Amino acid sequence: MRISDIAQILKGEIYNLKEDFEVESLKSLETASSKDLTFIANISKIPPDIKAGAILVKEKIDNLDIPQIVVKDPAKAFYKLIDILYSEERLSGYLSKTAVIGKNVEIDKTAYIGDYVVIEDNVKIGKNTVIKPFCFIGKNTIIGDNCLLHPRVTIYQDTVIGNNVILHSGVVIASDGFGYYQEDRQHKKIRHIGKVIIKDDVEIGANTTIDRAMLDATVIEKGTKIDNLVMIGHNCKIGQNTILVSQVGIAGSCNIGSNVILAGQVGVADHITIGDNVIVTAKSGVGSNLEPNNVYGSGIPAMEWKKWKRILVILQKLPEIFKSKS
Amino acid sequence: MRISDIAQILKGEIYNLKEDFEVESLKSLETASSKDLTFIANISKIPPDIKAGAILVKEKIDNLDIPQIVVKDPAKAFYKLIDILYSEERLSGYLSKTAVIGKNVEIDKTAYIGDYVVIEDNVKIGKNTVIKPFCFIGKNTIIGDNCLLHPRVTIYQDTVIGNNVILHSGVVIASDGFGYYQEDRQHKKIRHIGKVIIKDDVEIGANTTIDRAMLDATVIEKGTKIDNLVMIGHNCKIGQNTILVSQVGIAGSCNIGSNVILAGQVGVADHITIGDNVIVTAKSGVGSNLEPNNVYGSGIPAMEWKKWKRILVILQKLPEIFKSKS
Amino acid sequence: MRISDIAQILKGEIYNLKEDFEVESLKSLETASSKDLTFIANISKIPPDIKAGAILVKEKIDNLDIPQIVVKDPAKAFYKLIDILYSEERLSGYLSKTAVIGKNVEIDKTAYIGDYVVIEDNVKIGKNTVIKPFCFIGKNTIIGDNCLLHPRVTIYQDTVIGNNVILHSGVVIASDGFGYYQEDRQHKKIRHIGKVIIKDDVEIGANTTIDRAMLDATVIEKGTKIDNLVMIGHNCKIGQNTILVSQVGIAGSCNIGSNVILAGQVGVADHITIGDNVIVTAKSGVGSNLEPNNVYGSGIPAMEWKKWKRILVILQKLPEIFKSKS
Repeated sequence: MRISDIAQILKGEIYNLKEDFEVESLKSLETASSKDLTFIANISKIPPDIKAGAILVKEKIDNLDIPQIVVKDPAKAFYKLIDILYSEERLSGYLSKTAVIGKNVEIDKTAYIGDYVVIEDNVKIGKNTVIKPFCFIGKNTIIGDNCLLHPRVTIYQDTVIGNNVILHSGVVIASDGFGYYQEDRQHKKIRHIGKVIIKDDVEIGANTTIDRAMLDATVIEKGTKIDNLVMIGHNCKIGQNTILVSQVGIAGSCNIGSNVILAGQVGVADHITIGDNVIVTAKSGVGSNLEPNNVYGSGIPAMEWKKWKRILVILQKLPEIFKSKS
Repeated sequence: MRISDIAQILKGEIYNLKEDFEVESLKSLETASSKDLTFIANISKIPPDIKAGAILVKEKIDNLDIPQIVVKDPAKAFYKLIDILYSEERLSGYLSKTAVIGKNVEIDKTAYIGDYVVIEDNVKIGKNTVIKPFCFIGKNTIIGDNCLLHPRVTIYQDTVIGNNVILHSGVVIASDGFGYYQEDRQHKKIRHIGKVIIKDDVEIGANTTIDRAMLDATVIEKGTKIDNLVMIGHNCKIGQNTILVSQVGIAGSCNIGSNVILAGQVGVADHITIGDNVIVTAKSGVGSNLEPNNVYGSGIPAMEWKKWKRILVILQKLPEIFKSKS
Repeated sequence: MRISDIAQILKGEIYNLKEDFEVESLKSLETASSKDLTFIANISKIPPDIKAGAILVKEKIDNLDIPQIVVKDPAKAFYKLIDILYSEERLSGYLSKTAVIGKNVEIDKTAYIGDYVVIEDNVKIGKNTVIKPFCFIGKNTIIGDNCLLHPRVTIYQDTVIGNNVILHSGVVIASDGFGYYQEDRQHKKIRHIGKVIIKDDVEIGANTTIDRAMLDATVIEKGTKIDNLVMIGHNCKIGQNTILVSQVGIAGSCNIGSNVILAGQVGVADHITIGDNVIVTAKSGVGSNLEPNNVYGSGIPAMEWKKWKRILVILQKLPEIFKSKS
């Protein structure tokens, strides 16, 4: 695709273009060379020696003598270009002979079932869903349309997965919740007869685990995105469009709102409610309910971010404050 | 099973039962409807509109006009009912043609070996043990009776596993310990010729990893329960009936006692000893040995919980205390 | 091998040897018995009842009446002995009939491809590389010589792996980075067209995940060792000979230097630079760039270790200090 074509697609204005050319790749600002297109998100940080063939910018940069395409949101425009220029052939309509398929399994004829997939009894798999090698789908599970299961995802029995769900390699869905009762001074296993429900447009990162409910269901609502190595305990409800960053751990029976962001390595104790639009900063330990529409900070326990910051300022001054006294 | 049958099994007394009925499912207090049985653990928190068909209670609730079965411990009684009413057919006596079995492997004829299991040489597998698809059992490994290996568990060579052990999907047992020596300013790998020993009645959660010892063995004693995404380093000894909650990390050569609880995301430095009956609260960083029979708290480093709480109270007041001064 | 042979190999001097004998095993100080060889690293902590047949020591221990071999560095000598005495037969020159191999795949004839391995199109695998069962190698991937992929490693497409790389079970390389843009109040996936490059002599622990770059590459430089359950975000660069201990999490676009040590459960925020030779103690939250050649401590955020220690001392005294006042 030529620069002029790209400008047209993005409805952008071109500057400095001496000769229209075919774009070779989309690259970062640091690595783009004379045939590549890049973008600059932060106009206040323009590096001195950009070697890109052309650049997406928010407004024309006067001192920059390379072809520029001015668009409203250069980063977003660039991400959309990736989708257009690097579109991947979608696998479909294949059932490997090495796949082991149980009884009463309905697989849509447009679905792709890769090598060495095991699907137990009474499973239903929707249109254009792709299941890559070494995935295990437990009995009585329903998977919707346009899902993508990367290699070796495990789904235990009774799971319900919506449409457009992406599960990365190593994900474990609906493993038993961590629950025991005491008898004769031993931990006796509580059988978990609940399930996991994952709604549309959810993405779950590599090696993340989501436990099944004891009764009822652990639920991940629509549009929520979960990073790698996250743990979600039994009976949790996670709201819509929520972001759980890597290594977050949520204990059992929590109720996390919509549009929440839990940053990396945050831990949430069991039976906690976190309101909508909450942000919890990295590494916080959440030990009590959090009111909606606020930012909470990285102490253990997590507290209102503003308060935490004030404490932190004093904390860092303590050696100075007590110098004379100690 | 009818309400009257259930009451008889649980040796409970029935109140308010107008008409005996067949229980459809066991459900939570929130979701149970007119044919379901539920239970209430905390009598001080009775929700206003219970719709369950019947309820297990600790003592008769006077204002509640639904059938009640009074039992000593309603939660425990309910967990036992799950085992009775939802008993699952145990897989047994099967060896899939797609399983790859090495030389000198002894598999009890009552064991179940699922599709695409790989078992290396000199392995022994006991009675009624179930090994689900994509499990890998390294050479010279012994697995006892009544074990359940969920799909894609990896066990490296020389491992010893007792009876009634449950390993969830993604578990890795006996991967090499993280040990190097320095030579020519590089990290040279220390070969780990030790093993992992897992005793009876242990359960290990999804994607947890337990490293093999350099020499001797990493040992998990009887009845210990380990949650998802936990890391146990080389040469650790974990005592009996201990609970390791999700995302706990224990560095090499630690000695953790019996009946210990390490809450979520606790970290323990290497060569630490933690005494019996210790509780360490969530997210603590344990950097020194902990005396038995005490609770330790969430600072870094962890300290006696009572002390940590006192510090925390003052910590939270610091902005107030220093308001005038700063 | 006899004690006298071992002494000769290690160029060590023998003391107290009454009768030369064949060493049965290499064992720890605690478990070695009369036919075993052990070592003592810390001469100030000699346990009272050593039962070993012989011992490697740094200097002759006068009160110890068992055969001693004096070597410069007993631990290192012992690790080298393990390599010699327990050398394992290297698998090679095998391609399982159950392996599924794509088009245009070049596998060196000395490589070992185990059962149920799936290799996609346009992959190249070098000399003496061992790929154990259930590994998945995505298209356009290059793996060098003498690598060892333990069972069920997943490598997504376009990955470049050098020589002598060890990947443990459950590792996921080049899963999509965690990146979304906002549109219509939803998280839209940013396609990740970058890759992962892993240089020579890297070892990566069980269930660790390394995300692919959005553009360009996530890079792990030569000789770096990564423990279990570590998360490395998209576009990170990790320097040479760096050590990342278990459960470390590094967010996107970080630049970690060479010879760095990040201890267990350390978290690093996105776009952070950590200089060469930095040590960050366990559980630290790194929220700003760290200068090289220094030690940083376990507060959140992490700060210079010396400062953190001073704060900690006062922190622990706060209840005492404010006793009279509160």
